[in-house]
Amino acid sequence: MQKINVAEKFSLFTEQWSPRLLAEVNDMAVKAARLQGEFFWHSHEHEDELFFVVQGTLRIRLRDGEVVLGPGEMVVIPRGVEHLPVADEEVHVLLFEPRSTLNTGNVRNERTIDHVPSI
Amino acid sequence: MQKINVAEKFSLFTEQWSPRLLAEVNDMAVKAARLQGEFFWHSHEHEDELFFVVQGTLRIRLRDGEVVLGPGEMVVIPRGVEHLPVADEEVHVLLFEPRSTLNTGNVRNERTIDHVPSI
Repeated sequence: MQKINVAEKFSLFTEQWSPRLLAEVNDMAVKAARLQGEFFWHSHEHEDELFFVVQGTLRIRLRDGEVVLGPGEMVVIPRGVEHLPVADEEVHVLLFEPRSTLNTGNVRNERTIDHVPSI
Repeated sequence: MQKINVAEKFSLFTEQWSPRLLAEVNDMAVKAARLQGEFFWHSHEHEDELFFVVQGTLRIRLRDGEVVLGPGEMVVIPRGVEHLPVADEEVHVLLFEPRSTLNTGNVRNERTIDHVPSI
């Protein structure tokens, strides 16, 4: 049973939009991701997704508005809700979501990551 | 869809060993708790439990050792594993665990909280 130091885990990778698996809690996954720029609109049919910002500012655009998160702030995007993560500068984010969650949700493209590596 | 500022949520309550519900993610709960002193040995039969320290130092004693967590550090206590949280000074902790998780696990006593209020 190893403790997980979040800052140390972020120091171990630099790739953006490529989550790393930190831990599993029952059927949920805790992931770390570096985000910068604009992703694309997507939703997750069955999975709620929690974004928790560790460093930087994350904007999550919604069809009817926007949520702006700074360090120590989180939001849950409910299943089925279209969202578009945007980060003008690099942001470090923790994701809490079901293990089954695909990063690109209902879309499959060159940014889809089928296997999230542990770190 | 409201964002959650963790520090602000902690400012809204002072009671120790009494978790508050911040969010739900599928069948998981995100809770905030202030801990100080010693809890008691317990385990959760079916639930893994993630402790994420926001402020202070949390020691989690295990039958075969101890994990010491500072701010930005987390650990997952697997289901069935006996643990004893101890905090010499008050610590602010986020808990990520199934909604069904009872704070006192397999023990029922005066510290058992059946209903975790939202905050």
